[in-house]
Amino acid sequence: MVGNSLGKEFIVTTFGESHGKHVGVLIDGCPSGLSISEEDFQEELDQRIPTQTKIVSTRIEKDKAKILSGVFNGKTTGAPIAITVDNKEVNSIDYDQIKDVPRPSHSDYSARIRYGGFNDYRGGGRFSGRVTVAMILAGTIAKKLLCRCNIDVLAYTIAIGKIRSEKRFSVNEIRKNRNIAVTRCPDLVCNEKMEETIVAAKSAGDSVGGIIECVVLNMPKGIGDPLFDALDADLAKAIFGVSAVKGVEFGAGFASTEMLGSQNNDAFILKNKCVESVTNNAGGILGGISSGMPIIVRVAIKPTPSISMEQKTVNLSTMEETMLNVKGRHDPCIVPKAVPVIEAAVALTLVDHLIRAGYISKVIREGENIVGRSSDIT
Amino acid sequence: MVGNSLGKEFIVTTFGESHGKHVGVLIDGCPSGLSISEEDFQEELDQRIPTQTKIVSTRIEKDKAKILSGVFNGKTTGAPIAITVDNKEVNSIDYDQIKDVPRPSHSDYSARIRYGGFNDYRGGGRFSGRVTVAMILAGTIAKKLLCRCNIDVLAYTIAIGKIRSEKRFSVNEIRKNRNIAVTRCPDLVCNEKMEETIVAAKSAGDSVGGIIECVVLNMPKGIGDPLFDALDADLAKAIFGVSAVKGVEFGAGFASTEMLGSQNNDAFILKNKCVESVTNNAGGILGGISSGMPIIVRVAIKPTPSISMEQKTVNLSTMEETMLNVKGRHDPCIVPKAVPVIEAAVALTLVDHLIRAGYISKVIREGENIVGRSSDIT
Amino acid sequence: MVGNSLGKEFIVTTFGESHGKHVGVLIDGCPSGLSISEEDFQEELDQRIPTQTKIVSTRIEKDKAKILSGVFNGKTTGAPIAITVDNKEVNSIDYDQIKDVPRPSHSDYSARIRYGGFNDYRGGGRFSGRVTVAMILAGTIAKKLLCRCNIDVLAYTIAIGKIRSEKRFSVNEIRKNRNIAVTRCPDLVCNEKMEETIVAAKSAGDSVGGIIECVVLNMPKGIGDPLFDALDADLAKAIFGVSAVKGVEFGAGFASTEMLGSQNNDAFILKNKCVESVTNNAGGILGGISSGMPIIVRVAIKPTPSISMEQKTVNLSTMEETMLNVKGRHDPCIVPKAVPVIEAAVALTLVDHLIRAGYISKVIREGENIVGRSSDIT
Amino acid sequence: MVGNSLGKEFIVTTFGESHGKHVGVLIDGCPSGLSISEEDFQEELDQRIPTQTKIVSTRIEKDKAKILSGVFNGKTTGAPIAITVDNKEVNSIDYDQIKDVPRPSHSDYSARIRYGGFNDYRGGGRFSGRVTVAMILAGTIAKKLLCRCNIDVLAYTIAIGKIRSEKRFSVNEIRKNRNIAVTRCPDLVCNEKMEETIVAAKSAGDSVGGIIECVVLNMPKGIGDPLFDALDADLAKAIFGVSAVKGVEFGAGFASTEMLGSQNNDAFILKNKCVESVTNNAGGILGGISSGMPIIVRVAIKPTPSISMEQKTVNLSTMEETMLNVKGRHDPCIVPKAVPVIEAAVALTLVDHLIRAGYISKVIREGENIVGRSSDIT
Repeated sequence: MVGNSLGKEFIVTTFGESHGKHVGVLIDGCPSGLSISEEDFQEELDQRIPTQTKIVSTRIEKDKAKILSGVFNGKTTGAPIAITVDNKEVNSIDYDQIKDVPRPSHSDYSARIRYGGFNDYRGGGRFSGRVTVAMILAGTIAKKLLCRCNIDVLAYTIAIGKIRSEKRFSVNEIRKNRNIAVTRCPDLVCNEKMEETIVAAKSAGDSVGGIIECVVLNMPKGIGDPLFDALDADLAKAIFGVSAVKGVEFGAGFASTEMLGSQNNDAFILKNKCVESVTNNAGGILGGISSGMPIIVRVAIKPTPSISMEQKTVNLSTMEETMLNVKGRHDPCIVPKAVPVIEAAVALTLVDHLIRAGYISKVIREGENIVGRSSDIT
Repeated sequence: MVGNSLGKEFIVTTFGESHGKHVGVLIDGCPSGLSISEEDFQEELDQRIPTQTKIVSTRIEKDKAKILSGVFNGKTTGAPIAITVDNKEVNSIDYDQIKDVPRPSHSDYSARIRYGGFNDYRGGGRFSGRVTVAMILAGTIAKKLLCRCNIDVLAYTIAIGKIRSEKRFSVNEIRKNRNIAVTRCPDLVCNEKMEETIVAAKSAGDSVGGIIECVVLNMPKGIGDPLFDALDADLAKAIFGVSAVKGVEFGAGFASTEMLGSQNNDAFILKNKCVESVTNNAGGILGGISSGMPIIVRVAIKPTPSISMEQKTVNLSTMEETMLNVKGRHDPCIVPKAVPVIEAAVALTLVDHLIRAGYISKVIREGENIVGRSSDIT
Repeated sequence: MVGNSLGKEFIVTTFGESHGKHVGVLIDGCPSGLSISEEDFQEELDQRIPTQTKIVSTRIEKDKAKILSGVFNGKTTGAPIAITVDNKEVNSIDYDQIKDVPRPSHSDYSARIRYGGFNDYRGGGRFSGRVTVAMILAGTIAKKLLCRCNIDVLAYTIAIGKIRSEKRFSVNEIRKNRNIAVTRCPDLVCNEKMEETIVAAKSAGDSVGGIIECVVLNMPKGIGDPLFDALDADLAKAIFGVSAVKGVEFGAGFASTEMLGSQNNDAFILKNKCVESVTNNAGGILGGISSGMPIIVRVAIKPTPSISMEQKTVNLSTMEETMLNVKGRHDPCIVPKAVPVIEAAVALTLVDHLIRAGYISKVIREGENIVGRSSDIT
Repeated sequence: MVGNSLGKEFIVTTFGESHGKHVGVLIDGCPSGLSISEEDFQEELDQRIPTQTKIVSTRIEKDKAKILSGVFNGKTTGAPIAITVDNKEVNSIDYDQIKDVPRPSHSDYSARIRYGGFNDYRGGGRFSGRVTVAMILAGTIAKKLLCRCNIDVLAYTIAIGKIRSEKRFSVNEIRKNRNIAVTRCPDLVCNEKMEETIVAAKSAGDSVGGIIECVVLNMPKGIGDPLFDALDADLAKAIFGVSAVKGVEFGAGFASTEMLGSQNNDAFILKNKCVESVTNNAGGILGGISSGMPIIVRVAIKPTPSISMEQKTVNLSTMEETMLNVKGRHDPCIVPKAVPVIEAAVALTLVDHLIRAGYISKVIREGENIVGRSSDIT
C-alpha cells in the first residue's frame, strides 16, 4: 500500500537499506507445500557476483539467505515467509560526502524531500541497487512455482550503449550463452563489443546503460484482470519499481507506432489444433490478457548515475552550487546485474496473477499437478 | 482489486460496455467541497467528437454526463461519485460476425478465454475504446483538483506513423495548437503530414498508430511512494490500462540507453534559490519520487487493429481457419482520441499520489489554498 | 480503500444517498456465467416493505432494481456489475431542520466534522438506513452464488428490547416463520410480545432495539485467511459497516467468558466418517478458519435514534444548546428491516472468502458444479 | 491482502511461528523522524512476563527486540521497519502429540484443512498466542505516535469468569492499578477474587476466560471512513484478529438492545464551548466516525482451550475417536496476557486511520506538533 509491496495474492514486501544490517523480503500468500531450502537462493544470489571484475565494481558481495519464518520440514506452510541477507563489507565513509550534496540523477535529492531528510542516505539507502537482492530472493520462490507450472521466464541483455544485438536465439542458446557472457547477452559476438563499450566507459570515469529483454514461454492463455490490473500494466508497474528503468515496451512496442495495422496485426492460425498467431507483435498480451503466445517485454536501463567524472550539483545545507566527484566503487554498467532483477520482477507478477486466476493451487503436493482448472475453452 | 479500479486514496472504478446501456465511473475518495456540475464534463467529452470527419470514424457520439451520487448543492460531499454516459446509436449487428471469429490483435480471443465465452463481445464490449469515456469523466474531476493545486497536465500527439515532430513548443502554444490540429499535434506543419498519412491509410483500408507525449508542469517535489508504488510505476500502470498502449518511457527513455552517464545525468543547479536541474533526462522523477522538474512521459499507441482489409483468423466454433473482413466504422487512427485518455490516466494517478502524500486536503473550501503542508525542506 | 468498498476478490462498492436520485452498488469480481435478471432482486427488495404498518414507518418504498452493466444475454460477463434503485417519495423538507441541529446518536454531528459540512445531511444522507438497499442488491447476487455451492445463510430476529427468544428452530421453521412474523422472529409466541413492545415504544414516541442472529449451514471447512483476514474478523467488519450495530459475537460469544474451558471446548467426534464437534460454542470458526460446523453470529442493533420525544442537542451555527423534536416518519424499531441487511453482509463476506480460497470458480456454467477443488484432507 | 497484514497506510504484517526461530513484524508506512530504539520495546515486552507465577504458565519468555531495518541515527527513515524477537526455550516435544490429534477449540483442525497439513503445528504454530508478540512490537510504535498526538489508549481487565468489576476508575487509577494487579484489573478488590477464580481453575486442570475493556481518550473528532472502513468496523476487525476473541461491543453494546431510544440516545451539550454528549452509550463512534467522546470497546476472551483435563477428539491419521490430555505448560487464563495485545490492536487501527485522515504528518520533527490540519468545524 505504501510503496514497498507488490502483488495482491502473492504479496512481496521488501525491507532493508544498502548500509543497514540486512536486506530482506517478506512474502505473504505463497501456497503451502512448496519445497524450499536456503540453498535454493544461492544460485540466484551468486549470479550477482561478477564473473569478470574488469567491467564491474570490485565490491564483492558474498550473500547468503536466511529463512526466518514460513518454512517447516523443508516446505512452505502457507504462513508469511521472511528471508534476509546480511550486508557485509559496508563502508559508509565512502558515502558520507553525499549527505548534503545530492548526486545528479540519483534519488538522493527527491528522497531527502520525500522523507524530510530522515532517509538513510548512505549508499543511496533504500534506493540502492543493493535492495534488489530482496527481489531476487522473492523471485527465486516465484520461479520455483512457475517451474511447477512448466512456465519459463528468461531475461537477457540485448543492448549496451549503442551496441544492439538483433539476432534471435533459442531458449537453450540464451540459457547457455547468457551465463558465459559477462554482459548476459546471448549474442556472444555482440557481448564482446558490449564489453569493450563498458571498459571504455570505465576508463573515462563514465558509464553506459542498455536494454534487457525478457520472454515468458508456455504462458497459459486467459491470465490478466483488465482493465487496470491488466497483465502488461502490472508487469510494467513491477519493472518500473526498479529505479534505473526508464522505459518498458511489449512486443513490437514503440516500433509498432511506425507500422501499418496490416503489418502489426497478428493473424490467428491453427497449429496442432491450437489457436496461435503467425506473428507476435502484441508480445503475448491482448487487451491485458495473455494470449498464449510468448510474452515479450523490453526494458530500458539508464547509464549508472554514479560516475567518477566531476559533476555540478548543489550543497543543500549551504544552498550553494558545488562540484562533486562521486567516490567509492561504481559499476560502469549495471545492466548485467539488472538482468536477474528484471527476471524476478516478471516472475513475481506472473505468479501473483496465476494465483489470482486460480491457476496455481493454494496447496501444492509433491508429484501432483499444481495447475488448477484451465479456463481454456478452445 | 480485480481489475477495474485504479488508485488507493482516489479510487476510480469504471463500468459499462461498448454496446451496453451505459458506460460509467465510480469515484471513491474525492475530497468534499469541490464544485462539480454536469456541464464540467461536456468540454472534455466534446474533445472526442472529431473536428474533421475524413480521418475518423463517422460514428458521432454525442455524450452527456449524468451525476448519480456524491454531489449536493453543486459540491462534492465526500461520498462516492457515480457518473454515467448513455450509449446511443449502438448498432450491434455490425459486430455479430465477431462472436466466434476473433479479430486479429483485438482482445476478442483472450477475453473469450478469460471469461469462458460469457464476455459481451459486441464492439469489443468491455475492451472497446468506448469505455475510455469513463476515464475522461474521472479525469475531469482529477484535473479540477490539479487546477486548484496549480498543476498543469498536458497531452498531445508527437508522432503518427513515421511522421514525428521533434519541435518543442511552449505550454500556451501546445494548448492552442492541439485544439486546432485534427491530430492533436501542436506542430501544425507536422499535423498536416500526419493527416495525409491517416487519410492514405484509410483509403487503403488500413490504419496507423503513433506516439503521445504528456507533460506535467508545477509538479510539487517529493511525491511518490517507492519502491513499488513509485510515481513512474503507477503512471505506467495507469497508462498501460489503455489497451492500445504498447510502450511507455519517461524523460530520455529508451534513448538514454545509448547515452553515456555523463550525458544522461541531470546536473543540479540553483535557479531563483530553488534546486533545479540543467537537463531533464529523468523526466521529472528520480527514484520513483517527483523532483520538481516537469514530468515527461511518452506513450506508444499501436495502429488500430480494426482494418477493412481481409485478415486471416480462426473460427472458434468450427475450429477452422477463415478469412475476416471487419465490418462497421473504424478509426484509421485512434491516436487523436487517445490524447485526452492518456491525459486523464496521468491526472488520475497524480491526484491519487497527491492525496496519499497529504498534499491535497480531504476537505476543500472555496478561495482557500487546498494544498497541504509542503514537505519541501530546501 | 476509502470506506465504501467491501471485499478483496468480490468487491462491493455502494453509492447514493437517502435523498439523492439513486442508491446503487458496483460489484467487481463476480464470476462470469451466473444467471441474473432484474427480477431476481425484487423478492429481496420486497422484504423491506412492511407487512404490517402499525409497527413501522409509513414511508412505503417501492423499489425496483436496474442493471446498468456487466450482464449480457441474462448472464454475468465478468465485467463490473452496476445496479441502481431510484429514490422515490423523497420529502427533503422533513429533514431541513437537522442541517445545523444534529440528532442525538445519529451520525449528523460526526459526519459534519468529517466532511467539513459538505455532506448531504438530508435524511442522514449517506448514513441513512436507505443506503442498505445497496447491500441487499449485492447480497442477492452473493446468495445466488452461495446457493450454487449449496450454502445456506439465514438471519432472523432473536430479541426485541427485553423480549428474547431462547427457543431453537430448524432451518425450515425459521425460513417459514420469519416471513410470517412482522419482527422476523421465528418464535411466533415471542413475535407477538415483541410486536407489543414495538407498538408500546411507538405510542410513547420512543424506540427499541434488538438482536439478530445469522447462521450459515453447509459451510465448507478451511475457509479464512488468518491472522488479520480471519473469517470472523471480516464478518465482523462487514457487519459493523451497518451503522446501528453496536456488538458482534460468534458462537457462545460473551457468554463463553463465564464458562470454564472444559464447558466451552467443543470436543471433536466422528459423524458419518466426518469430523464434527459435539457442541458449537466456537460458532463454526476456529483460529479464523471455518471448521465445517454452522457459523453462528449474533448482532446487537441499538434502538432507532430517531424518536419523536423532545431531546437536548446543540445548534452548530449559533453554538447554543437547544431542544429538538425530530419530525418525519420514524421506524420505532429497525431490527426487522435490518435482518436482510445482516444476511447480505454475511453473504458478501462468505462469497469473497470462497472466491479467494479458489472454492468458487471464476467461470460458472449451467448445470456444472461451480465448486473448486476442495482442500479438505480428512 | 492474504491475511497477515493490517491497515492501509500504516501497514503491519506479522510473521513467525510459536516454535520457529523468530516472531517478527514488518511495518510499512510509519512516518519518518520518529525516535525509536530497541529499548522502547522492552517495557511492553516485559508486561507479558507474569508478575506472579501461580496463575500463569511457567514458561518464562525473556524477549528482546531487534530492529532489522528502517531506523537510522535513532529515527525512523520512512522505509519499512522490520523487528524480530527470537524464540527461546522452545520445547517442541511437548506438542508432537497434536500433529494428528487436534486439540478441541484450538485452530489445529481448521488450520490443517486450510493449509493441506503443511502448517507448522508445533505449539499452534502461526496461531499461537506467542505470535501476538509481533502485535505488541508494532503497537509500541503506534503508541509512540499516539502519544505525540496526546491520545491515550488504555486496556484493562473487567471480568474473569463470573467475577465482573462494575466500578469505574480514573485513567490514573487504571494506569497505576493495572500494573499492580496480576489480572490487569484496576479494581483491586475484584482482582483478588479473579485471582482465586484462576487458581481454582488451574487446580482443576481447567481454564477461565474474561472481558477486556479498552478506552481511548482525547480522540480527535471526525476520524473514520464510513461505510465499510468505519472506525468501529476496523477496530473490530483488528481485535477479532486475535484468535481467542469471541465478541466485540462498543459503548453500551449488547446492553443497548434492551434500552429504549430515549435511554440510549446521547444528548449533545456544550462544555467549555465544545460539543460533547451527556452520556456515551455510543462509545465515541457515530456512523463509523469518532465523535470526540472517549472510544469504549469491550472484548470477550474465551477460556484457554488448552486444559489438562482429558478431552474427546479424533485422530486424523487413523480417523478414530480418541481421548487427549494436552501436555505442556498452559495458562489457565490468558486474559491478563491479552490486555496489551488488545491495546496494541486498538492503537494500530487508530494510527492507520489518523494517517489516512491526514491527522498525523508523514514527517515528524522533534518538538514540533505532528498533528495535521484539524477538520473540526465547530
